[in-house]
Amino acid sequence: MAVKASNKNNKQEAKTETEGRNQMTSRRQMTSYDVARHAGVSQSAVSRCFKDGASVSKKMRDRVMKSVKELGYQPNAIARGLITRRSNMVGVIVSNLNFYPEVLSELSSRFTERGVHVLLFSIDHESDVSRIIDQLWQYQVDGVVAAAHLTPDQISLFDSRHVPVVFYNRAYQDIPVSSVCCDQVEGERQLVNLLVESGHKSFAIIGGPKDSVVSMQRTQGAISRLNELGITDIVEEAGDYTYASGGAALQKVIQKRGSVPDALICANDIMAIGCMDEARYRLDLDVPGDISVVGFDGVRSSSWASFDLTTIQQPVESMAEAAVSMLLERVENEFIPPEKRSFSGVLRKGNSVRD
Amino acid sequence: MAVKASNKNNKQEAKTETEGRNQMTSRRQMTSYDVARHAGVSQSAVSRCFKDGASVSKKMRDRVMKSVKELGYQPNAIARGLITRRSNMVGVIVSNLNFYPEVLSELSSRFTERGVHVLLFSIDHESDVSRIIDQLWQYQVDGVVAAAHLTPDQISLFDSRHVPVVFYNRAYQDIPVSSVCCDQVEGERQLVNLLVESGHKSFAIIGGPKDSVVSMQRTQGAISRLNELGITDIVEEAGDYTYASGGAALQKVIQKRGSVPDALICANDIMAIGCMDEARYRLDLDVPGDISVVGFDGVRSSSWASFDLTTIQQPVESMAEAAVSMLLERVENEFIPPEKRSFSGVLRKGNSVRD
Repeated sequence: MAVKASNKNNKQEAKTETEGRNQMTSRRQMTSYDVARHAGVSQSAVSRCFKDGASVSKKMRDRVMKSVKELGYQPNAIARGLITRRSNMVGVIVSNLNFYPEVLSELSSRFTERGVHVLLFSIDHESDVSRIIDQLWQYQVDGVVAAAHLTPDQISLFDSRHVPVVFYNRAYQDIPVSSVCCDQVEGERQLVNLLVESGHKSFAIIGGPKDSVVSMQRTQGAISRLNELGITDIVEEAGDYTYASGGAALQKVIQKRGSVPDALICANDIMAIGCMDEARYRLDLDVPGDISVVGFDGVRSSSWASFDLTTIQQPVESMAEAAVSMLLERVENEFIPPEKRSFSGVLRKGNSVRD
Repeated sequence: MAVKASNKNNKQEAKTETEGRNQMTSRRQMTSYDVARHAGVSQSAVSRCFKDGASVSKKMRDRVMKSVKELGYQPNAIARGLITRRSNMVGVIVSNLNFYPEVLSELSSRFTERGVHVLLFSIDHESDVSRIIDQLWQYQVDGVVAAAHLTPDQISLFDSRHVPVVFYNRAYQDIPVSSVCCDQVEGERQLVNLLVESGHKSFAIIGGPKDSVVSMQRTQGAISRLNELGITDIVEEAGDYTYASGGAALQKVIQKRGSVPDALICANDIMAIGCMDEARYRLDLDVPGDISVVGFDGVRSSSWASFDLTTIQQPVESMAEAAVSMLLERVENEFIPPEKRSFSGVLRKGNSVRD
């Protein structure tokens, strides 16, 4: 009841204050001029009190801060951005949020720790990037972390506007851009080595979406290591990274081969989980008895007892920390050259591969 | 190679332009003054061309737009925000991103469709809210969707600043705030009715975190319906919404009772999945043969063949659409009174309950 009453009072106060003005524009914000008038100092003195490293006496600061407190003034980050040419905001472009909750969570908390805010751009398809690029300029983000593919033309737009961009798990071979990746090829080679050492001889590879560079690196990494080891009994199929597409791809693999392969290498964990369920509940196969399955990513559900999937765990925390610090360094100094950082994934041996 | 060369040229141009100036402040933005000078018109004419509904002749608009194109000018959304007192940004507060990827994705795409941007505030614990409230004022968000609990004092801060807030799945009984919820109690009553009709007589309830109002509503909803139906053989335990906490709670339930209850009612799907795995892989129990399990939420993994969980599917799309439209209505007109909208969840019958 106390709260109700206080809310009511606030509304009434606001209404009285703005009487005679248009109701729609009644949101009265305290400005630094109000503070200056209240404290009896110049507006530039107030500004100096909110600027790091500006010279201002203790007496002046105390006087201004007293008025700030009494008026409930908040320095306006947007107005400050106009002066410093910094918005203190970064854009994070995520191509499919459902695949990246942990990454976004890690990026977001690390930027926030450093007083930088995340303007989120979530797109359904990587091809939707062009739609949001204009909006990035409008909000004058200081930089961008992109967990989505940009075309060379789009990348050069960032460059010409001096807005640094760091790619998350997107690598470019011919364009000098900064990126943080998990070493997809090394990870797949570890998985292939494990499978071949434990006697698996026939393989199926289930790739992800055709426009995914990461998926391509993973499947090519697996195939080239298999070939190096003299194995050529390989069937390829593709899904779209979803659970359902994993099971459907396994069905196609078996149709194509006419039999069940020894091992299934899936370009991500969720498709691997879809394959395990398809094998067990629709094909009546034992995993790993009849078929071994491996994934990539190390998502939470991969370690659930139902799956206990052998996979490559991406070091999400280290990768997010690297992306954040690389980006903010380049916001401070745009002349730091592009840098590519590649983290090793960790082989997590579960119970989805037979010994 | 073409891109490399063009990037280099851009960098060189920028360097020449800013020669003699501090390198750190070299990001030259085109302003509406540059456009006005180039087009030979007044700056206010340029402004009118970027304002919806402002009067400007076709000839003038064409002239200005030609210069805009030639100069590569982008209207500055932040500067415009200072004039309109709108930032065109909303804050979305999410208490644990990992539980909300689908909700955030739905909110984000719906705000984006309407040209409104999402400033993301992801907090680890609901008690961290106080830390971010100042930042909301600094960025002058037009409104907030909060999937986190706020104290009555915090809510009154929004009210006194005339920043509308809509709660997502957080309900308040004593404070007039806007909220969009799934009807937790109705959902639990549907689950209890199903279980009792199919002959289950002894129950365990596994609640979520102690500070979660939603969890409290769910467990109380289940218990009161069980009591109405004359069932009193109920054991209560609590987890923290995680997979591991579900399994641990099931172990405690069995210790407490000295036997396995007929049915387990979990306050969310992830704990229900943890219970199913614990039952099958550690306690050697058949689900649903030895114990029936139900959850709440309808997350993707609940429908995977390994679990095929009986649960209440929250209508995430409808709820997100409601939250977005309710918030933007109140940004336009702050005098629209608070409104509570409650959506029915959909009972999804899986194979985790015996007939």
